[in-house]
Amino acid sequence: MTALPDFNDVLAAARRIAPMVHHTPVLTSRLLNAQTGAELFFKAETFQRVGAFKFRGAANAIARLDDAQKRRGVVAFSSGNHAQAIALAAARADVPAVIVMPADSPAIKRAATQAYGAEIVLYDRFTENREVIGQALSTERGLALIPPFEHPDIIAGQGTAALELFHACGPLDMLVAPVGGGGLISGCALAASGRAPACAVVGIEPAAGDDARRSLAAGHIVEIDTPETIADGAQTRAIGPMTFALMRAHGVRIETQDDASLARTMKLLAERMKIVVEPTGCLAAAAVLEGALDVRGKRVGIILSGGNVDMARFAALVSAA
Amino acid sequence: MTALPDFNDVLAAARRIAPMVHHTPVLTSRLLNAQTGAELFFKAETFQRVGAFKFRGAANAIARLDDAQKRRGVVAFSSGNHAQAIALAAARADVPAVIVMPADSPAIKRAATQAYGAEIVLYDRFTENREVIGQALSTERGLALIPPFEHPDIIAGQGTAALELFHACGPLDMLVAPVGGGGLISGCALAASGRAPACAVVGIEPAAGDDARRSLAAGHIVEIDTPETIADGAQTRAIGPMTFALMRAHGVRIETQDDASLARTMKLLAERMKIVVEPTGCLAAAAVLEGALDVRGKRVGIILSGGNVDMARFAALVSAA
Repeated sequence: MTALPDFNDVLAAARRIAPMVHHTPVLTSRLLNAQTGAELFFKAETFQRVGAFKFRGAANAIARLDDAQKRRGVVAFSSGNHAQAIALAAARADVPAVIVMPADSPAIKRAATQAYGAEIVLYDRFTENREVIGQALSTERGLALIPPFEHPDIIAGQGTAALELFHACGPLDMLVAPVGGGGLISGCALAASGRAPACAVVGIEPAAGDDARRSLAAGHIVEIDTPETIADGAQTRAIGPMTFALMRAHGVRIETQDDASLARTMKLLAERMKIVVEPTGCLAAAAVLEGALDVRGKRVGIILSGGNVDMARFAALVSAA
Repeated sequence: MTALPDFNDVLAAARRIAPMVHHTPVLTSRLLNAQTGAELFFKAETFQRVGAFKFRGAANAIARLDDAQKRRGVVAFSSGNHAQAIALAAARADVPAVIVMPADSPAIKRAATQAYGAEIVLYDRFTENREVIGQALSTERGLALIPPFEHPDIIAGQGTAALELFHACGPLDMLVAPVGGGGLISGCALAASGRAPACAVVGIEPAAGDDARRSLAAGHIVEIDTPETIADGAQTRAIGPMTFALMRAHGVRIETQDDASLARTMKLLAERMKIVVEPTGCLAAAAVLEGALDVRGKRVGIILSGGNVDMARFAALVSAA
């Protein structure tokens, strides 16, 4: 296994990607502070490029490639925010990018990825395996395969969101972030280890897909079936060896939230804070606002990880909440 | 008539209210720039206290009261953003505030205004006149009546939104803002007169309520019936002598947008920029994004004036857009 990234890698990533990323705002709400008895700091990665924190890791991973690899290019497989993040980060660095997407993914998503200048390779979700296709492209064309979370440069890049949050609001008692594959929460733990070692780092998973919680409890990686949840960015079946090791080493605690709580939180954040947060992006806020964590009297950082949700879905979810 | 406010009044207002207001972010979008061929700067007053630019004028007007008047208090009549703005600004300055609201206004709105510490006086919309009630309270209890737009301190306060925008992005070719009673657009014109005299200042009204456009065309204030539009913050029946004079003096141009355009823009801003903007707050953005203004090649400032819309209404509007 590659060496685990540490706090210095997050600092280096922050310097490296500073000219490319948005320093997203930290939002506060008098009302939500009063309601929870805490001081809440919402890091709005909804306003990051491509609408999610994923751009940070992508920009860092691409900046770290050597010149020869930059000329050959990169490949990623994803139908979500990671694909768009790699496409844009590659385009900005003049690096060719190939994105492997399901043939039945929404035309609008394919068009958006193409608009960032990436080459799209389609595959049949029912008969083909995207990892095999990605690996084949990597081998045949000499492309660097950039995974969505299990990669030191991705993890260090994601950690810069938490680094900016600490910079904006000083030490925190607790830092809460969504967990899919664990790239973001691992990066948060690294940032906290250097900036606020006493800060509790808490990851929130969908209740239907609590593989990280189970893995930490079992002491080994537990794989689950693809979970059914509206948090489509956290439908991972297993965390990786590196994110598992980092969560363990830094004492990350995992809690869960169900879909109804995510929908209520989407509605609350839209109505009170005037922001559109995708279901996955609501995980950490839901845990704090719905009372799953003891936050009274504490200074609490919350990562709102992304805002990519189409309006038909958003309207349906907040109407039913 | 009171002397018209000028650029120096906006500068003074900015200094006066700096510790109280949020310096709201200026948002940009690669995609919307590409789509319009312009460089667009969105001033997100959705993130202002009470969710709208109205807090600026309210804070300025209350700060300008003398000490005796501050002890006696203020009165305002409004069922919308102005009421909440006066309630909060007064509470922060330890000034008693009375808000005159319709007896049938939503309980949630009354509760929110009360939560800011204001005294609510209810009236029957069908048998009583709120202006008479407000005037009577002012006379009987010695309260300063603070109108929603026709007041030099309100106008100068609203102008600080544009001042911050110029500060953030330098000279602009065009500055576009919603028009209800004309307080915001007059303040914008004052800010532009000092910061970017060549900048065109364009106000956008709902198509159903184009009283400002008609007034400027006629050379005198034209009064209309209460317009039917989803832009509930711009359902004014007439602009005031002061806002009319300022619009005329500064060559403000007025255009309109219909409700369908506002709903499409709400959806676009939510989907692409991840922000919740109320229908009135979409007026300026709609005019730019739907091609009503010639913005190609220009640097254009757009005021997103507020974000107070309940989610049931928001969901219905974006679903139908």
